[in-house]
Amino acid sequence: MMPDAPDRRSADPNEGIMRATSRALRDHGYADLTIKRIAEEYGKSTAAIHYHYDTKDDLLAAYLDHLIDQFASSVREVETTDPAERMDLLLDKLLVDVAEYRELLVAMLEMRSQAPYKEAFRERFRQNDEYLRYMLKAVINHGIDEGVFRDVDADHAARALMTIVDGARTRAVVLDDGEALETARQTADEYVETVLVADD
Amino acid sequence: MMPDAPDRRSADPNEGIMRATSRALRDHGYADLTIKRIAEEYGKSTAAIHYHYDTKDDLLAAYLDHLIDQFASSVREVETTDPAERMDLLLDKLLVDVAEYRELLVAMLEMRSQAPYKEAFRERFRQNDEYLRYMLKAVINHGIDEGVFRDVDADHAARALMTIVDGARTRAVVLDDGEALETARQTADEYVETVLVADD
Repeated sequence: MMPDAPDRRSADPNEGIMRATSRALRDHGYADLTIKRIAEEYGKSTAAIHYHYDTKDDLLAAYLDHLIDQFASSVREVETTDPAERMDLLLDKLLVDVAEYRELLVAMLEMRSQAPYKEAFRERFRQNDEYLRYMLKAVINHGIDEGVFRDVDADHAARALMTIVDGARTRAVVLDDGEALETARQTADEYVETVLVADD
Repeated sequence: MMPDAPDRRSADPNEGIMRATSRALRDHGYADLTIKRIAEEYGKSTAAIHYHYDTKDDLLAAYLDHLIDQFASSVREVETTDPAERMDLLLDKLLVDVAEYRELLVAMLEMRSQAPYKEAFRERFRQNDEYLRYMLKAVINHGIDEGVFRDVDADHAARALMTIVDGARTRAVVLDDGEALETARQTADEYVETVLVADD
């Protein structure tokens, strides 16, 4: 490799475009987003983006894939295997860590509302939901095996928790309710403690 | 009154326009909705609608008021005062009866996603949420007084139940999940039975 070759990681066009997309979504929301605005954030021409993505929606579908990957990486950092503790940390990732991305939640709800009209979006949201439910189910089944959780229907319990997560995200945006995530975190705890956790 | 005077009730322009708006929303969603399309459903000219409403969003804000009124009327039909039974019927209204309005849920999520940009929408969604939480809180407090519910924080419990309701509506639309409402109905029951209902 030549000594002056650029750092391949930071020069990865995809990484740069994803970061620019994230900033543009926060600033403009989904409806007012244009490739031009993303290019401005990216600091290059619109052609540099069109080289990789034909349309705004193609780029946003890739951005949703990117978010799923990012979340998966952050979940792999959860190192504990204790079921109750792992459940706690997963729920923190889903309902606490997300609080700092308020503007992104706004843009994301706009994209979610377009899922019935845009199959590429719907597919990504479904895939993301499946992944999250898979993670939750694994923890619940592990807890059942270890006798810390009751012998509940793990599939239903995972769906119940995701219903609370999605409700919180919707309420934070629609009602501009600064406590929606906190309320949901407490509700999820109540669900885990009263429905899942086995009596001593 | 002249014998041939039209029936005033069915000739109420507002009622007719609200019904036309509902049908147009179901057929076209929010983004593609126009006054022209509502006028077509109404069977009159766009001028007949503009006589009452300046813009599409003015009309839709009135439509949201109309939905809140309709829900309030339907809740007044719930005649039982037994707290557990009344809670059950309220949750049915919020999570079971709504299943037949799938297309309307799609349009409603689009409008919800616009709440951060349109104050008139945000106000209506907040007002609706406040009304529903008020209804739920009244039942919970009544249950606490009668000793059938534990001495919980009624405000939090009402928010928890609305989080489940909003999560279900979002999931039904975004994931096109035909069982999202049923899952949430069961989750709400679990919450009521394990968190609210007092041990004998």
